[in-house]
Amino acid sequence: MREVNPMKKIDINSDIGESFGNYKLQDDEAVIKYITTANVACGFHAGDPIVMRNTVNLVKKYGVAIGAHPGLPDLMGFGRRRMMISVDDAKCYTIYQVGALKAFVEAAKMKLNHVKPHGAFYTVTKFDDNLARAVLEGILDIDPKLLFYMPGPLPIFKYPKIAEEMGIKVIGEFYADLPYNSDGTINIQRLKQAEDPMKVAQKVIKFMDTGKVTAVDGKEFEFTGDVKSICVHGDTPNVVEVLQTLRRELKKANIEVVPVRQLI
Amino acid sequence: MREVNPMKKIDINSDIGESFGNYKLQDDEAVIKYITTANVACGFHAGDPIVMRNTVNLVKKYGVAIGAHPGLPDLMGFGRRRMMISVDDAKCYTIYQVGALKAFVEAAKMKLNHVKPHGAFYTVTKFDDNLARAVLEGILDIDPKLLFYMPGPLPIFKYPKIAEEMGIKVIGEFYADLPYNSDGTINIQRLKQAEDPMKVAQKVIKFMDTGKVTAVDGKEFEFTGDVKSICVHGDTPNVVEVLQTLRRELKKANIEVVPVRQLI
Amino acid sequence: MREVNPMKKIDINSDIGESFGNYKLQDDEAVIKYITTANVACGFHAGDPIVMRNTVNLVKKYGVAIGAHPGLPDLMGFGRRRMMISVDDAKCYTIYQVGALKAFVEAAKMKLNHVKPHGAFYTVTKFDDNLARAVLEGILDIDPKLLFYMPGPLPIFKYPKIAEEMGIKVIGEFYADLPYNSDGTINIQRLKQAEDPMKVAQKVIKFMDTGKVTAVDGKEFEFTGDVKSICVHGDTPNVVEVLQTLRRELKKANIEVVPVRQLI
Amino acid sequence: MREVNPMKKIDINSDIGESFGNYKLQDDEAVIKYITTANVACGFHAGDPIVMRNTVNLVKKYGVAIGAHPGLPDLMGFGRRRMMISVDDAKCYTIYQVGALKAFVEAAKMKLNHVKPHGAFYTVTKFDDNLARAVLEGILDIDPKLLFYMPGPLPIFKYPKIAEEMGIKVIGEFYADLPYNSDGTINIQRLKQAEDPMKVAQKVIKFMDTGKVTAVDGKEFEFTGDVKSICVHGDTPNVVEVLQTLRRELKKANIEVVPVRQLI
Repeated sequence: MREVNPMKKIDINSDIGESFGNYKLQDDEAVIKYITTANVACGFHAGDPIVMRNTVNLVKKYGVAIGAHPGLPDLMGFGRRRMMISVDDAKCYTIYQVGALKAFVEAAKMKLNHVKPHGAFYTVTKFDDNLARAVLEGILDIDPKLLFYMPGPLPIFKYPKIAEEMGIKVIGEFYADLPYNSDGTINIQRLKQAEDPMKVAQKVIKFMDTGKVTAVDGKEFEFTGDVKSICVHGDTPNVVEVLQTLRRELKKANIEVVPVRQLI
Repeated sequence: MREVNPMKKIDINSDIGESFGNYKLQDDEAVIKYITTANVACGFHAGDPIVMRNTVNLVKKYGVAIGAHPGLPDLMGFGRRRMMISVDDAKCYTIYQVGALKAFVEAAKMKLNHVKPHGAFYTVTKFDDNLARAVLEGILDIDPKLLFYMPGPLPIFKYPKIAEEMGIKVIGEFYADLPYNSDGTINIQRLKQAEDPMKVAQKVIKFMDTGKVTAVDGKEFEFTGDVKSICVHGDTPNVVEVLQTLRRELKKANIEVVPVRQLI
Repeated sequence: MREVNPMKKIDINSDIGESFGNYKLQDDEAVIKYITTANVACGFHAGDPIVMRNTVNLVKKYGVAIGAHPGLPDLMGFGRRRMMISVDDAKCYTIYQVGALKAFVEAAKMKLNHVKPHGAFYTVTKFDDNLARAVLEGILDIDPKLLFYMPGPLPIFKYPKIAEEMGIKVIGEFYADLPYNSDGTINIQRLKQAEDPMKVAQKVIKFMDTGKVTAVDGKEFEFTGDVKSICVHGDTPNVVEVLQTLRRELKKANIEVVPVRQLI
Repeated sequence: MREVNPMKKIDINSDIGESFGNYKLQDDEAVIKYITTANVACGFHAGDPIVMRNTVNLVKKYGVAIGAHPGLPDLMGFGRRRMMISVDDAKCYTIYQVGALKAFVEAAKMKLNHVKPHGAFYTVTKFDDNLARAVLEGILDIDPKLLFYMPGPLPIFKYPKIAEEMGIKVIGEFYADLPYNSDGTINIQRLKQAEDPMKVAQKVIKFMDTGKVTAVDGKEFEFTGDVKSICVHGDTPNVVEVLQTLRRELKKANIEVVPVRQLI
């Protein structure tokens, strides 16, 4: 059996800053205590300038790594509806949103760590290599040292390969709270439902120990890609409980949660 | 008589990049040939990420100075309706928009030169010193070397004084195509009308030669503030003709049009 | 002492349907059980087409009166920031939003009962008689039999008088959960805070019994206007508890809560 | 050879009211003189409440038939980017937009004639029968007598059949200014280009006389569906010239342009 994680170390990332105006999505301060990496919404699918500033300050207070979480311009659909965007759209939406967040991050005397496309912005760009390249060009235009977070074990998509060829370091993720298909793809609904925290923890630990996942159809499959981070969705209704349970169980399993920069 | 412009040199700035999606506002390439400084919309009152990228490339092609032109979040009103925003709004809207434009500017290997609040974003912040301070703090957070464009001769507002105290260099503007009240204030309608190009040119040259302006009520008044730039609105329907006439008449009057950095 | 409410009957209205996309503002089903009149957001300050359809169905299920709650086009500020709109804006924003909601209401085989402008849409139109008239013209264009909800005892504003002159029936409201100034005006913050339910109930009952209110400065003043409805804000964080307590205390005080059409 | 148009009569429809705020898309008054049916944008892909009111008044002045032209919520992409919307989205977006326009139409003492989904709202709903049904249910909820405009000769899609089964009268269109594929489908780019007016006219007359069209691949194919209206896109840059030429050439060919209600 392949040893997936010989170091027994992993990063945990979560999307935060997804409130908007008077609408509060989640208690970000409760979430941030359990993660090492924060993906901050940039105003297209969620977030607004004040939310972004406040979220950046929260990240600074807790000292975790901060990344941009750009989305499609679809607040009404929370950026989870695929849109047939153009190559220009993909590149310019990346520069605009990452640039805006970077300004808040630098105003707070921090450094932007990574970019992780949100929801359907990731989905539509993974299906089209030209769109993937456009997002990555946008990232290169901002800062070639930015890491790129994306689902790890997806040999069917060239996205990570394209990124590495373009000189961008990819951080593969394992989705703790999304059901996997047996080809390694995942599906996210427009509105996240609550998860059974213990099942989430067990799924992660099984993956960490064996590299294997049980798909929705009951089949077990093995990840072939490199995974350095666990993603827990910030808008899962019981996200805090999920994270608490996950951290406790990871500790029991002697898996250390560390900032991603310690893993590369 | 006070010599307003002993150097006989002046900058000309115009707002460009105010198209949105399929909507084209003005022929920016026709405008940019006649100006030395471009204020580029940042997506709130006008502009979108693709328009911004294209506009930045256009500015690069013509080699003029580039600044951010942030506005209120009111595309439907073209950012010309006053909104009672908060201090947090003012600061965060500045950082978000200037940060987004700066990313495009740096992607094009240029340097952001200045910030000029658009329409009602300027108006509401000039009436409230706390809002003014918030905008300026946002600018400081981005880059303390950014210039700040604003209407020049307005002793009744503390905005320029606040800026200078905070260490931000102010560039006073003369509005070529807006009628002045005799207290030095100007009014802009939501939708700009065409201007008589010759009258615009004569008004500018009179001001450059004498420091005096004839107000809408017929009274002549003298500017007391420092003016280093002439503003011609990019959405004036006949803006190209206005600019052509202005440049021709300035030349006849031996007034040289130069980049603003040569004047400070 | 004037008898404010000789019938000992009152309507209770609340704003519901103010969720947006994945953002849930309040548990509308918990609120609607305690009210007789629902004001439904129409997509500008809050609400979206799916939220509106679901809210209309909820109102139908509980059989309360349904009205349109149009707002300013400012989702980011929840429609609580004053915008200097034009007369055309005021009229057309009314027709657009009320027309859209009316379509959902009629699709559910119900009848639209009233219109109540939201937040700053009410505020900016109360300060300018031309804007007030424009809103009312919009309502007349839709249906002259629509009732118009607004704060009741405000002799300093001509809004209700203009409405009655134009043939629109006004329903004066008493604000249960907003502090009154001693001139009868009220202030609403952008983000509502939780209220002490017992204090809210006592304030309402005192007003119902005596027509008197204690203002924020401690002065007691008497309402001179006609009040037929109590407004409880749907986005008050503890709105359900406030409504439960209010209903219980009104019952103790022998004040009956009835649909507004029984009071006119 | 099948006689396509034995009456030698046809309706001409065009999308108008697609301006937004200060952005003017086209000279609607120049367009409306040449058409018999106007499709009016409803605020999602284009149009705003003031533009809608003004457009309705313009339609009234010229006495043509008026329909709603609802789109996807994508102003930045002019509603021409496919979005993976849900059945609920499709239905509620229809009710919201058609309801809003209907309010303006009725305020002007006119009657809404039809609905024609715009751009990608048509495209995504034609590919999914459940989405098609949802749009049509939305129309039924508003008024079962509304006509439904859509591309005529598309046997590969069940949309028209579903509509007729649901009791909605379909008006098939021929696209004068879009290139046809040889399977009868058409493609529209995000930004319409200018057309050769004479070629447009000849294509329409050939179709009217023979029922045949030359596809982009040079193949000639025959329409099998019923066509009662010619569509000319309102955002074609030279739309007025195209319409003038089309009307002149139709007259030469003895084809009469009449309101669609005369053809059913």
